[in-house]
Amino acid sequence: MTMLESLGLADRLLMEADRHGTCEFRVSGQAFQVSYSDLYGGREHYVYPQQEVVKDLIGGFLDRGGDIRFSVSDVELRELTSSRPSVAFTSADGVRETITSDFVAGCDGFHGVSRPSIPVGALSEFSHQHGIEWLAILAEAPPSTKAIIYALHEDGFAGHMLRSPSISRFYLQVPVGTKASDWSDEQVWEALHKRFTLHDSSWALTEGKIIEKRVLDMRSHVVEPMSYGRLYLLGDAAHIITPVGAKGMNLAMNDAATFGRALIDFYASGSETGLKTYSEDCLRRVWRAQEFSQWMVNMIHTDVSSPFFGRLAQARLEHLAESPAYRATFAENYVGP
Amino acid sequence: MTMLESLGLADRLLMEADRHGTCEFRVSGQAFQVSYSDLYGGREHYVYPQQEVVKDLIGGFLDRGGDIRFSVSDVELRELTSSRPSVAFTSADGVRETITSDFVAGCDGFHGVSRPSIPVGALSEFSHQHGIEWLAILAEAPPSTKAIIYALHEDGFAGHMLRSPSISRFYLQVPVGTKASDWSDEQVWEALHKRFTLHDSSWALTEGKIIEKRVLDMRSHVVEPMSYGRLYLLGDAAHIITPVGAKGMNLAMNDAATFGRALIDFYASGSETGLKTYSEDCLRRVWRAQEFSQWMVNMIHTDVSSPFFGRLAQARLEHLAESPAYRATFAENYVGP
Repeated sequence: MTMLESLGLADRLLMEADRHGTCEFRVSGQAFQVSYSDLYGGREHYVYPQQEVVKDLIGGFLDRGGDIRFSVSDVELRELTSSRPSVAFTSADGVRETITSDFVAGCDGFHGVSRPSIPVGALSEFSHQHGIEWLAILAEAPPSTKAIIYALHEDGFAGHMLRSPSISRFYLQVPVGTKASDWSDEQVWEALHKRFTLHDSSWALTEGKIIEKRVLDMRSHVVEPMSYGRLYLLGDAAHIITPVGAKGMNLAMNDAATFGRALIDFYASGSETGLKTYSEDCLRRVWRAQEFSQWMVNMIHTDVSSPFFGRLAQARLEHLAESPAYRATFAENYVGP
Repeated sequence: MTMLESLGLADRLLMEADRHGTCEFRVSGQAFQVSYSDLYGGREHYVYPQQEVVKDLIGGFLDRGGDIRFSVSDVELRELTSSRPSVAFTSADGVRETITSDFVAGCDGFHGVSRPSIPVGALSEFSHQHGIEWLAILAEAPPSTKAIIYALHEDGFAGHMLRSPSISRFYLQVPVGTKASDWSDEQVWEALHKRFTLHDSSWALTEGKIIEKRVLDMRSHVVEPMSYGRLYLLGDAAHIITPVGAKGMNLAMNDAATFGRALIDFYASGSETGLKTYSEDCLRRVWRAQEFSQWMVNMIHTDVSSPFFGRLAQARLEHLAESPAYRATFAENYVGP
């Protein structure tokens, strides 16, 4: 938000985004809330869908005379270690073209061509498959809560996220290898009711028509360094993170801001300092986020194959409920940079 | 310490124990210290060997007229669910004896007879083999530091603990399955020098004659509940924890204090409340310690099979170096109850 504001691109976000400063955890039939905004200088989360951010960024870029080619295919990156790398592609109308430039910013995601264009051995890869899958559910149901709910239940994690006054997002931890079609709508609601259950409370979950069910698997991946010659990797092209803690888009935005500043410096003063430290600067934040996400993954999931870790998750949540110092640490990581 | 003091058994400890309020971490060739005592109301660690605590406790018990039978064998626990359980054993001079009592306190460690005397199915067991081994080294070398050092190195963890002005304790993370005899003294010192290395520092490690080398494996084990009929499990009989965070003896002492208070209540007022909540009360602290120990295990070890977790450990340590809130959390857990 701060970055978009500084670029004059935050008007719609500031007008439309919901703000959140509190989240709720449930464990062993009890709920507690963490007012992370109060614990971290009033900083809040702005809930604004990623596709809306993309719209605002594309709009801002085009307004400033930017040139974007959509629907290109057969992209090839060439001469990346020279001072004039190029990008070859087939345009939407079938013409083969090449653009030569000073730098290439690889912002094409985890499955894009940028990272695989770097020779094997030039990057160190760090990856982890968490062995955790979520059934992601979108339902035409008004939210049953004002604060996001993370529930740890012995059957697995359940999450209640907020989308709009009429649409809610839910997550259910499901056994590895589950297909979305394995779960009927009735089973979904039954599991959500069960995992969100509170003792001594009249809280109730409002059901609605389920309009989407799909399975997400938790994985993490980071490459070091985030550049090769004149190719710089940004966002998911360089790192993916679990959705837990919601850091993915913010890390990508930080990469873009860092790379943008480095280019401005380079063209304004000829200094390559920002380009040289780009990878290190971004990776510091990437690993901080990965560490936090892992900490939180471990706190809200049940590892059915290891009841020991289920108890540790419970102990971690109970500590969060009881310790002001622990909550301050959570807030700093959850809503901080 | 507080508990021993309240029992009038802390005189020798207070006179002889070293006190520590700061520890040092090393990562990527840099060191930082955490003054956990300053961060947690001045509370310090008392460094006093476990065998000395045992001496003081035995002395105190005998002074008050207690009866201890040493070197007994073939111990059997009987009628545990009756109101008069008994302990049968063969005394040191070969006589078979039985002691009948109101309660049995099973303080006989992880490999003792108490826990296995409980029928299968009456306890839930939670265990984890961490896949981490330490070579524990005792050397006739004066300490090279005033504060305990925990070093994370890409080869693995190294620790420098304090024993006395002429003896030091070191730990080296070694591959799983290593035998102590696999490591020559030269290799030990070489690894310690390497893993403790600091850039830009004249710090040096003082060597000495190695007088002990043995391998420790990291494992955790907890049973729930910590009682069965009139048998109550205390300390390692109910739970073991990794040495990381140094919580094992303190948890055992807390069990003893909790059980002691429950017995005093029972005999003073006939109330069984303390006996009924014994397990729950102790387990809360046990799981808190297990969670903290696991957090710290993950912070100071290199998982050679997963470089991803090595980077997370590094990120965790860097966060500890940078964030006052994170250090406050560490202090609360490290020196708190």
